[in-house]
Amino acid sequence: MLFPVRRRLLTALLQAQHWPFQPSRDMRLVQFQAPHLTGPHLGLESGNGGGVINLNAFDPTLPKTMVEFLEQGESTLSVARRALAAQLPVLPRTEVTFLAPVTRPDKVVCVGMNYVDHCKEQNVPVPKEPIIFSKFASSIVGPYDEVILPPESQEVDWEVELAVVIGKKGKHIKATDAMAYVAGFTVAHDVSARDWQMRRNGRQWLLGKTFDTFCPLGPALVTKDSVADPHNLKICCRVNGEVVQSSNTSQMVFKTEELIAWVSQFVTLYPGDIILTGTPPGVGVFRKPPVFLKICVCQTKD
Amino acid sequence: MLFPVRRRLLTALLQAQHWPFQPSRDMRLVQFQAPHLTGPHLGLESGNGGGVINLNAFDPTLPKTMVEFLEQGESTLSVARRALAAQLPVLPRTEVTFLAPVTRPDKVVCVGMNYVDHCKEQNVPVPKEPIIFSKFASSIVGPYDEVILPPESQEVDWEVELAVVIGKKGKHIKATDAMAYVAGFTVAHDVSARDWQMRRNGRQWLLGKTFDTFCPLGPALVTKDSVADPHNLKICCRVNGEVVQSSNTSQMVFKTEELIAWVSQFVTLYPGDIILTGTPPGVGVFRKPPVFLKICVCQTKD
Repeated sequence: MLFPVRRRLLTALLQAQHWPFQPSRDMRLVQFQAPHLTGPHLGLESGNGGGVINLNAFDPTLPKTMVEFLEQGESTLSVARRALAAQLPVLPRTEVTFLAPVTRPDKVVCVGMNYVDHCKEQNVPVPKEPIIFSKFASSIVGPYDEVILPPESQEVDWEVELAVVIGKKGKHIKATDAMAYVAGFTVAHDVSARDWQMRRNGRQWLLGKTFDTFCPLGPALVTKDSVADPHNLKICCRVNGEVVQSSNTSQMVFKTEELIAWVSQFVTLYPGDIILTGTPPGVGVFRKPPVFLKICVCQTKD
Repeated sequence: MLFPVRRRLLTALLQAQHWPFQPSRDMRLVQFQAPHLTGPHLGLESGNGGGVINLNAFDPTLPKTMVEFLEQGESTLSVARRALAAQLPVLPRTEVTFLAPVTRPDKVVCVGMNYVDHCKEQNVPVPKEPIIFSKFASSIVGPYDEVILPPESQEVDWEVELAVVIGKKGKHIKATDAMAYVAGFTVAHDVSARDWQMRRNGRQWLLGKTFDTFCPLGPALVTKDSVADPHNLKICCRVNGEVVQSSNTSQMVFKTEELIAWVSQFVTLYPGDIILTGTPPGVGVFRKPPVFLKICVCQTKD
């Protein structure tokens, strides 16, 4: 039997310090559903926390998935830019369901121990090379979907992360060219079953990282031109409203450009590929005593 | 700079003992290209080593990718069965290019140390639970494509494997029900950069396993009804014509049904997902001295 974590239990917030919940001209691409629409659609979130502009209604020739949208590169992005500049109807936020901004990518690449302050918390040296692991794409869920606590684990932990979304195919990308391969950024949760990650499965992290629902993403893919400095973003995670992780992406050991250069030595990156760039301190497993996510049965007014 | 391994350097063969290169009524699904056709097509290999029947010409409503074909389940399989029974034109093998039988699956699941005789070779105990790791789908190449020896590794090794292809979506599948979720079987090569697998990347195996071209597959997805016993198949690997691995799938520690039950505890399996079931003994790294793949510049008559 599976146990849904209450929707409010685990929330993550990553925001530029100048985007405090007001409409903006930043390009915030989303995938969404609405009762009057058939299947997933592409949209623009009208500011952080705002409603949604239906991009497929603006231009019915646009694809309906983010991976296909990104594969078409500048031609589809320019349509989205025109939509952003136009006065278009906005679907109220209460009437849409936000999906993950990217679904079914070829790869979900993850980076371990990539925050200086997270390494200090574990009392381990800062890695000299990125440590790369992965999740299966099947672990991706929407930003407000429930995280399923699997009965197979007793040690499910939180890890908020900045995620990079690849916008262009590339191999052996130089760090100095790397930003040309980035579509934008989003928020990811690298939910982690510590028992499976650290003590089971021959110490290969994969299984502990890739249970279904262990990769909430979104809501928005914020395009790179809308992010002044991806390495100076406040990043925090709340559990039941309490801040449990709070840091800044400036603490990243290997920045976006270095990670893309590193990973693309091994693999061709494709549009839609996601790189989870590591988590700051404050995870449950290194607390004394350790704290893990559990079913919340308390009554709350909300 | 990348160095292509000569096409004949690394070949793998997995065959039932009763399929010695003669036409058969076994269903051997392939993805292929031909000069007179636009893009990849679905086909039937006319016996092991035979030509190809174009399934998309037989029924133009069929999808052109194996993942979509499998997603449609029994309806598309029944079309392929009718094609197999009909007298249809066969494209000569020399006129087609075989692609991997599955491309862009959601998951490439791999199993470590899953042959009793391979564990003995390493002098390690037989695992009590399957050890699961993964490759990215971007590492998949066709059965006769070149394996690129990356300059980043000096220790590229061979690993022939039986691969299971999932035919139906499922989670928490019981071992007794598992074969209902299997579409069929194919041959895989779990090409492995031992330096990256065993000594780098915080000992997470992913990078050493997932360089581009490190997952040759195919040529055929042999449907399960065409395989009398998947756990009694001769499995061997040749390098430059010399047999370097030779065993039987009866040596598998965890059989197909157990692996599906195990993996589906963690993740939902989807049509097209591939499970590489582990390699028999004879890999290069455990030889004394170790042997690795290298560029073959010798002159051969062939």
